[in-house]
Amino acid sequence: MKEDKAHPLGVPGGGTWPSNDDASSASRSPTVTGLDRWLARTMLSLNGNPRIALVLWDGEEISGGGGPPVARARVHDRRTLVQMMRSPSVGFGDAYSTGLVEVPEHLVELLEEVYLGLMHAGAKWSRLQRLRASRTRGNTPSEARENIHHHYDLGNDFYRLWLDERMVYTCAYYEHPGQSLAEAQIAKMDHVCRKLELQSGQHVIEAGCGWGALAMHMAERYGVTVEAYNISRQQIEFARAQAHARGLENRVRFIEDDYRSIEGECDAFVSVGMLEHVGTERYGELGAVVERCLRPDGRGLIHSIGRSAPAPNDPWIEKRIFPGSYPPTLTEMGRIFEPYEFSILDVENLRLHYRETCRAWLDRFDAVADKVAEMYDMNFVRAWRLYLAGSTAAFAVGTLQLYQVVFAPRGTNRVPWTRHHLYQDSPRLD
Amino acid sequence: MKEDKAHPLGVPGGGTWPSNDDASSASRSPTVTGLDRWLARTMLSLNGNPRIALVLWDGEEISGGGGPPVARARVHDRRTLVQMMRSPSVGFGDAYSTGLVEVPEHLVELLEEVYLGLMHAGAKWSRLQRLRASRTRGNTPSEARENIHHHYDLGNDFYRLWLDERMVYTCAYYEHPGQSLAEAQIAKMDHVCRKLELQSGQHVIEAGCGWGALAMHMAERYGVTVEAYNISRQQIEFARAQAHARGLENRVRFIEDDYRSIEGECDAFVSVGMLEHVGTERYGELGAVVERCLRPDGRGLIHSIGRSAPAPNDPWIEKRIFPGSYPPTLTEMGRIFEPYEFSILDVENLRLHYRETCRAWLDRFDAVADKVAEMYDMNFVRAWRLYLAGSTAAFAVGTLQLYQVVFAPRGTNRVPWTRHHLYQDSPRLD
Repeated sequence: MKEDKAHPLGVPGGGTWPSNDDASSASRSPTVTGLDRWLARTMLSLNGNPRIALVLWDGEEISGGGGPPVARARVHDRRTLVQMMRSPSVGFGDAYSTGLVEVPEHLVELLEEVYLGLMHAGAKWSRLQRLRASRTRGNTPSEARENIHHHYDLGNDFYRLWLDERMVYTCAYYEHPGQSLAEAQIAKMDHVCRKLELQSGQHVIEAGCGWGALAMHMAERYGVTVEAYNISRQQIEFARAQAHARGLENRVRFIEDDYRSIEGECDAFVSVGMLEHVGTERYGELGAVVERCLRPDGRGLIHSIGRSAPAPNDPWIEKRIFPGSYPPTLTEMGRIFEPYEFSILDVENLRLHYRETCRAWLDRFDAVADKVAEMYDMNFVRAWRLYLAGSTAAFAVGTLQLYQVVFAPRGTNRVPWTRHHLYQDSPRLD
Repeated sequence: MKEDKAHPLGVPGGGTWPSNDDASSASRSPTVTGLDRWLARTMLSLNGNPRIALVLWDGEEISGGGGPPVARARVHDRRTLVQMMRSPSVGFGDAYSTGLVEVPEHLVELLEEVYLGLMHAGAKWSRLQRLRASRTRGNTPSEARENIHHHYDLGNDFYRLWLDERMVYTCAYYEHPGQSLAEAQIAKMDHVCRKLELQSGQHVIEAGCGWGALAMHMAERYGVTVEAYNISRQQIEFARAQAHARGLENRVRFIEDDYRSIEGECDAFVSVGMLEHVGTERYGELGAVVERCLRPDGRGLIHSIGRSAPAPNDPWIEKRIFPGSYPPTLTEMGRIFEPYEFSILDVENLRLHYRETCRAWLDRFDAVADKVAEMYDMNFVRAWRLYLAGSTAAFAVGTLQLYQVVFAPRGTNRVPWTRHHLYQDSPRLD
């Protein structure tokens, strides 16, 4: 492992990681004082007294209320404690990433406790937050390109280490107990295709296609042609190579461009895991793209991380992991649909499936942490572990939701009569 | 039949029907002039040139564009034409009700054409309407009681003539082709119960229970106890008599009170067809009732007529049929859920099922029109025919939607893993 090796894309967030000079030098920290204990207790209290313990640099434990701690976070020095107090999200996130806070075990459980504490204690506080929630974000085409580059162009080799073999980086669908991640990703793609009622010969437009797994799945299994858009160059290059290898070049076209540039007509419009990066103030533009492209009897599906009530994105996630991202409520998603009177046919919440998906990613990531450290450094490994553990926890306690929304242009009656067809073997070509 | 017999509750809307002195005296109308033709053409044009014909009092036909007319409306005199021009909804509605406009056949198809014309041509006009859409409505407890009395207390004998035997007055669920109205209403109740995952021994609170069919079905088939609220005295009396006859008094309690008075705790909160009468400015109060009553691991379902985009209620429906009613969008329904961070689990749109339901009601109503005229008068018969035909047409073309929204309190993970269980035989006691 190489500690402190420079990040190939620069430091996530474009800034510099905080120094961890003190990480291996607890001896330099002053003795724990009454003020330190007060700070630790106050921080736990402001976070709704989660059942966790802060272990201070002399080994002393400060616990939240309501039972024995489910996990412990070791804080290396006073400066880190003060940083966490001043900025719980970024302070904790950066301290964890640089090793100034350690959670030797039960990281997911610790984060679940913190999120639950905030959910129950922070009603007033979170209402204040909501006032800021829908602020304008930088998601012009060029800003979007930079934001997407930051995360999705980390390198195909990196994602290949811990995603499933098809490189699907969105919520899976664990249709049956005991399914593997790879099986659940295929089940998700089939679930989406059934919801879209794809018929052989139809044409599909996909906005934000990742590494192309869904586009190729639709073409191979459902006999459709697909135009799939993405602004991540590395993803597009991977997808094109895959399409070539699978002989799908005539049926799937991967286009390196922004969703706002989408042209042409389609029978189905699908977007899985892109909306999080669009920004609510651009939802009308996305709706206009769909209105322009989707045939009168067509069908649309938008799959997105979301929330039950508006809230700003987690500041550390925004700063270090997903700049420009925002998980919307269903009400906010209405800004896509209502101006064009799209008829919402079906909404399904797959929150617990995303908990399972993130947990599987976290396990796989942990298993290759050494290799990731070789590629980047330990700060990067810890940051990504925190991101994956935090996502697992957020879906587990309901801080985040996952919505699949199926819709149709206004006025069409070519809509499914019931949803029985989603729960039977779907017609496939193979 | 008794023409012009006084309505037992007074004239719907509390006003007076317009006179139909001229209905049988077309001879008194002046000759059709160029101005009349211009008026008729302009009215069709403003309505998006639907494929219908207006037959003027001398027999002359004025047609909308785009193909041969699918239906004809006979306008008895110039005054009626001017009324319809000045106020398309109330003018037409009242003229039809009093016989000053006649549609001898294809009434549903005529209304479908009008709604489609408005939908396609009236985009700008309807955006203007939306500005007015969410205006405050009179839905305080006492106003609500008056509004509900106006419609639901027309008399159990009246509704018994044309509803199914269980007196279910909400959208049915035609689970299989060829089902009767009665079968589809049972299927709807089972669909709702499966979505709520009712377990024997649980307690259910129902807000707005109509004649009690769902409450009794839940108790009989799913082994739950129910407290069901309604402010329509006639419906509550009918429901209590039914519960007595079926030996359910110990398991279903019918309470004549407003949803705002609901108390106690429940495992499931259900409301089918009440939200239309709540008024958007009261949705927060409804959310507070649910928050207060629903146990942390409970489940809720709200079933309501809705829209794809905000629009004011049809003025004639508001004036003559359902004072104080308003069909919300999903975004507007968010005002119930988001303040309390309820997690939306599932939304299903049953629009075409309501088209079938209304069509069945219309057929059954037409079959007993003579009896209804005996009870009330022909104006009442025509008004209700128009209301049922208009509802059929509105669900057919998508002016109205039907949403079933399933939700859970924030944070609970006792939610169904998939929706498979809705599409298999559900566990029942019998």
